[in-house]
Amino acid sequence: MGVKVGRQSLQFASPPVINSAAAIVGPKEGNGPLAKTFDKVLPDSYDGEETWEKTERKILTESVQLVLQKANLGAANIDFFFAGDLLNQTITANFAARQLGIPFLGLYGACSTIVEGLLIGGIVIDGGFATNVVSAASSHYGTAERQYRFPTEQGVQRPLYAQWTVTGAGALLVSKEGTGPKITFATVGKVVDLGQKDVTNMGSAMAPAVVDTLIQHLQDTGRVVDYYDLIVTGDLAQVGKKVAQEMAQQKGYDLRAKHTDCGLLIYDAVQDTHAGGSGCGCVAVVMAGYLMQEMQSGKYNRILLIGTGALLSPTSVQQGDSIPAIAHAISIEN
Amino acid sequence: MGVKVGRQSLQFASPPVINSAAAIVGPKEGNGPLAKTFDKVLPDSYDGEETWEKTERKILTESVQLVLQKANLGAANIDFFFAGDLLNQTITANFAARQLGIPFLGLYGACSTIVEGLLIGGIVIDGGFATNVVSAASSHYGTAERQYRFPTEQGVQRPLYAQWTVTGAGALLVSKEGTGPKITFATVGKVVDLGQKDVTNMGSAMAPAVVDTLIQHLQDTGRVVDYYDLIVTGDLAQVGKKVAQEMAQQKGYDLRAKHTDCGLLIYDAVQDTHAGGSGCGCVAVVMAGYLMQEMQSGKYNRILLIGTGALLSPTSVQQGDSIPAIAHAISIEN
Repeated sequence: MGVKVGRQSLQFASPPVINSAAAIVGPKEGNGPLAKTFDKVLPDSYDGEETWEKTERKILTESVQLVLQKANLGAANIDFFFAGDLLNQTITANFAARQLGIPFLGLYGACSTIVEGLLIGGIVIDGGFATNVVSAASSHYGTAERQYRFPTEQGVQRPLYAQWTVTGAGALLVSKEGTGPKITFATVGKVVDLGQKDVTNMGSAMAPAVVDTLIQHLQDTGRVVDYYDLIVTGDLAQVGKKVAQEMAQQKGYDLRAKHTDCGLLIYDAVQDTHAGGSGCGCVAVVMAGYLMQEMQSGKYNRILLIGTGALLSPTSVQQGDSIPAIAHAISIEN
Repeated sequence: MGVKVGRQSLQFASPPVINSAAAIVGPKEGNGPLAKTFDKVLPDSYDGEETWEKTERKILTESVQLVLQKANLGAANIDFFFAGDLLNQTITANFAARQLGIPFLGLYGACSTIVEGLLIGGIVIDGGFATNVVSAASSHYGTAERQYRFPTEQGVQRPLYAQWTVTGAGALLVSKEGTGPKITFATVGKVVDLGQKDVTNMGSAMAPAVVDTLIQHLQDTGRVVDYYDLIVTGDLAQVGKKVAQEMAQQKGYDLRAKHTDCGLLIYDAVQDTHAGGSGCGCVAVVMAGYLMQEMQSGKYNRILLIGTGALLSPTSVQQGDSIPAIAHAISIEN
């Protein structure tokens, strides 16, 4: 039996294992510094599909098929599939689940979705209800821009603190047994909103939620920042990372030596994405690619992965609401 | 430790208990046959708010506050909050979670959401990770029509097989211990899609998923239809109920003596809703009101509650996709 630890955290009795992972990205991500850590790079933003929505659906599905192939498992070996995305009614995940045929539980946590899925997947396995589950998430620059902002054809200028939605899908296999890194603790976030209303500045809207969850995690588990080799947020990017570090500093936690962000890892400064990457797919592909590989190689042995979600919609913005945000964390350890 | 049973079902080792429930509905639902089973009926569709979206958010929040009040618990006593709704980016649930301050996991399962929340909540409790959780869901006629169909001011004529989105929010408290009805088994659905494309005929799009999950549940658990006092779907309404019963009949399962649907229970035929009710709030308020009360009174002792979700979006429809659907089931027993 697992246990609740403190107010918001969970400790797994038999830590579930991340045995395999797969990441598929778009051309821009394939030109970035993590290019070699991804399994597949699309030749263009459509990859032969008629619409970007269908491309996103295809790569989410393929990322799951790839993770199963790597683990030598079929869809019938997977007990449950946890997924979500940024599109209205999470259609990417729903249609991928239709094609995969795996019993499915749909999630919505904006860019925190992959961590929410790993967290719930871990609970289901540690609770005795499953042997293998897959958690996956995706985003696509074209679908996200169209839905949240402006048609890309319009060429609207983006402020320098805006983030660039990653085109990518990441899938991770979590199992009862195996040799991969283990999910030892999880911290479920609360919704935090300090009143930020600028929808082009997501990083600073999400930073307070990250600090809230991080401090809660450390308090609940009795750990210190230095316990971890790396504290990885996804995705605060340049502006949000700075805000989060300053807020943490004010509360007595110095993150500077340990903190990095998936939105900063995925692009080079010369790629002109402004503040960095974002989107459900960003943290999903960085975790499924780079971070998994660096944990398997032993470069990192203790990671705290904090998925961050901005829980707004265009409607809530039009009605004058500020941007609520959430952050969920999982400890991944060798 | 719980166990997986068959392909898609779970058996709880220490069945979690539904100790309290609360339901708030709109005026139309308050004029229906279940009026007396609800805790609060709104005087009009706005209830003093500026927009329907804010009204929906308010009643979801209040339904949770009410369930806590009934159980004599504070928000600090609730380990986790599971919620979702129909609006883009599930803003109703997100903003309710912001106000409530309970660690939150956002779900999207369209009208199956409340059952998805009870199912995951049950897993979290049985797995040892929580003592009390709340699962809640909501919908609002005004917000759903505006987002999915036409502005209501336009007065577009609805076909007779269309369903009417319920204005309502339901919340249920699930605990490790207590005297209420227990969640004994759960069956996680697969996404099923037989190619239906008519967005005004949701019931028939969802019926195949219901039959798939129901039969899987019976096979996994070794139970028969007659084991249950009531098999309640939410929400197939008139057309979908008939389709589901016919499909089940063809596969050798006669549901007629046991099957009812939340979309049919909630309105009187004279209320001119056409095929009946729908929306995340429909099954949520019927479960939190009528069904809870009839289980507490002992009229029903064994219910199979099947939440049904149509997993489309306006974008997927515009791009020519058919309507994927899912159904999750939980056994609730005294």
